[in-house]
Amino acid sequence: MTPASTLAAGSAGTVETHFVDLPAPVRLDSGGELHPVRVAYETYGTLAPARDNVILVCHALSGDAHAAGVSATAAAASTRDGFGADDRDGSAGKALGWWDGMIGPGKAFDTDRYFVVSTNLLGGCRGTTGPSSTDPATGEPYGPDFPVVTVADMVRTQRAFLDELGIERLAAVAGGSLGGMQALQWAVLYPDAVDAVVVIASTHALHPQGVAWNAIAREAIMRDPDWQGGRYHGTGRAPDAGMGVARMVGHITYLSAPALEDKFGRRLQFADDVRYTLTEPEFEVENYLRHQAETFVQRFDANTYLTMSRALTYFDLARQHGDGSLAAALAGVRARTLLIAFSSDWLYPPAASEELAGALTEQGLPAELHVIDAPYGHDCFLLEEARQTPIIQRFLEGQ
Amino acid sequence: MTPASTLAAGSAGTVETHFVDLPAPVRLDSGGELHPVRVAYETYGTLAPARDNVILVCHALSGDAHAAGVSATAAAASTRDGFGADDRDGSAGKALGWWDGMIGPGKAFDTDRYFVVSTNLLGGCRGTTGPSSTDPATGEPYGPDFPVVTVADMVRTQRAFLDELGIERLAAVAGGSLGGMQALQWAVLYPDAVDAVVVIASTHALHPQGVAWNAIAREAIMRDPDWQGGRYHGTGRAPDAGMGVARMVGHITYLSAPALEDKFGRRLQFADDVRYTLTEPEFEVENYLRHQAETFVQRFDANTYLTMSRALTYFDLARQHGDGSLAAALAGVRARTLLIAFSSDWLYPPAASEELAGALTEQGLPAELHVIDAPYGHDCFLLEEARQTPIIQRFLEGQ
Repeated sequence: MTPASTLAAGSAGTVETHFVDLPAPVRLDSGGELHPVRVAYETYGTLAPARDNVILVCHALSGDAHAAGVSATAAAASTRDGFGADDRDGSAGKALGWWDGMIGPGKAFDTDRYFVVSTNLLGGCRGTTGPSSTDPATGEPYGPDFPVVTVADMVRTQRAFLDELGIERLAAVAGGSLGGMQALQWAVLYPDAVDAVVVIASTHALHPQGVAWNAIAREAIMRDPDWQGGRYHGTGRAPDAGMGVARMVGHITYLSAPALEDKFGRRLQFADDVRYTLTEPEFEVENYLRHQAETFVQRFDANTYLTMSRALTYFDLARQHGDGSLAAALAGVRARTLLIAFSSDWLYPPAASEELAGALTEQGLPAELHVIDAPYGHDCFLLEEARQTPIIQRFLEGQ
Repeated sequence: MTPASTLAAGSAGTVETHFVDLPAPVRLDSGGELHPVRVAYETYGTLAPARDNVILVCHALSGDAHAAGVSATAAAASTRDGFGADDRDGSAGKALGWWDGMIGPGKAFDTDRYFVVSTNLLGGCRGTTGPSSTDPATGEPYGPDFPVVTVADMVRTQRAFLDELGIERLAAVAGGSLGGMQALQWAVLYPDAVDAVVVIASTHALHPQGVAWNAIAREAIMRDPDWQGGRYHGTGRAPDAGMGVARMVGHITYLSAPALEDKFGRRLQFADDVRYTLTEPEFEVENYLRHQAETFVQRFDANTYLTMSRALTYFDLARQHGDGSLAAALAGVRARTLLIAFSSDWLYPPAASEELAGALTEQGLPAELHVIDAPYGHDCFLLEEARQTPIIQRFLEGQ
């Protein structure tokens, strides 16, 4: 790792993605086991001799292990997601990690103090075993034969991976969106191994409108004939058209209506009048959507999208761990919990965080909730660094 | 028309769709003219000798001329759109018009008093000339050669059609969503021919998030290889996959998140656990979406969907008639205006109606705004009959 001093102040530096092959199969909620499993990961900061300063950060639907710093191996590729994030990448062009604003010296997850670990999730397409990995049974990519994995499967994979690194305990697990689900799952599955969880713009169970948006995105992919039942690898075709539509749906759900109003309004692409065309973008927001679709299909695997989307819709702590009761599901938790939600996030609305905070408090567990009034919708978890940072720093110092 | 007494009280009766061929070409905003143009229409009630009791009702994106009563010609096919509407059709199975709850003896648009006229819009696929009509230049369906039409083009077509019926003045023009845009357009284009307009769940210019949803729906259709650049007629293939996705997007935008929570929650399709499948619906809301997609493609033409969607995103009174100023665009209006919006409608939020009411009042024009607190989202305009009826009746009596 290049010293941070050679880069902008506060940067985690130039980083590389590493890989670990797990020695044992990963048990899956669907019944079987998966083996072999490789995990792609990055680390930022220094592991303390007592190994007690580890923070695991968990990515969201379309993220990867490259959470912070500048990638040495993928300097041309951007992995940052979302609204302003994409804008900044466009101007910076430096392949910053997806949470670079939150991880680094002096940042929310302070690498002067903590050893921050980030993995690509089970089922991913950026180095960790997923649908585009080789199925040892056939020698071909798994494709649709890759098992349908859950958030708990992802967390068990992270647990096995950390064992390989010789890390038993986590000072914290943190993530936004699907990443926040993993943090909650950690607290439930491994209560003795987690001191604190930071759950941002997330939920214990996605509401039905969110389930519907995810279903629509998956339908768009699976209805694309180039998906070929999931066996598109090696055919020279991939469901780019459907993936593009899925990405467009995702993007609009990540943003708030007022943010779109501020950024695009009803401004036209060309001149002062419309051109009377069905096939070409007329409004700036239409052009933006096309651009998002085009760049996304270049970097993301469709079967991984389906896998991640399914996992986050399945996630339901009350159903899976509490026989329908959220309080029962959380009864065994021992970690301190920080919940952050954003007022304009309609995909992961503050109500779910409020429900979580209430259920934790009911169990006598320490839970802290902050609803940040910010306009950018769900993407706030990637963008509102300045206001999240002091909250997270104070919470982590409290342990 | 069968007397209403043979049907349930309040019904407009058994109705038939009729057709008129316009004698002259329709001038289009895009520059050309369209000829021939046929208009499909239905009427309910009796035209007064003075011809002063005519109300034109205008349908929304996927509607047609069959607004009320029971269709004599399409008894098996449902034309009602939306949430509870579909449910009711499912149980009734009687091909009720899409606004049957609002049009009939004693209803909001009282056919004991008014002669209610409903047309299929220009560009439609249910009898009025549209992309699936025969292009006289080729003898083949227009397909993508059908002109890109605007709300003003639709209204000019209605004007020419009413001339053929010998109707000069309208006691009122009424509609919801795209139908409300037509009502506003009537007030602006033909101020001397309209006494009152009833604009429900509509806007003077769709906000950018709505523009985005419409763009996504159109992309889903046009990216379907079976769309074939719009020339799918006669090929034995149609973009059903893309139309299905478009319809799913539409449906979710027509409903509110709380309505989905009430109706579906996170209930699973089968048993008490998930089945770990990417390809099959697991949640009830997923199954509902598939059902909506399947039934829609059986009754609606993809090129008409594109045409209607484009027209409603283009609609922008301030840009088209006021050089950017809504007040200027409305300056020539002489009709009384009733605006109804619904608290949970996030596709056509009350804010637009409030802006319209403000701009009309600023011009010294009589405008009445009612924001109805109701949970069903945009679909309220089809469902909240009981609360709209007295408002509309009082407004119409006021003239």
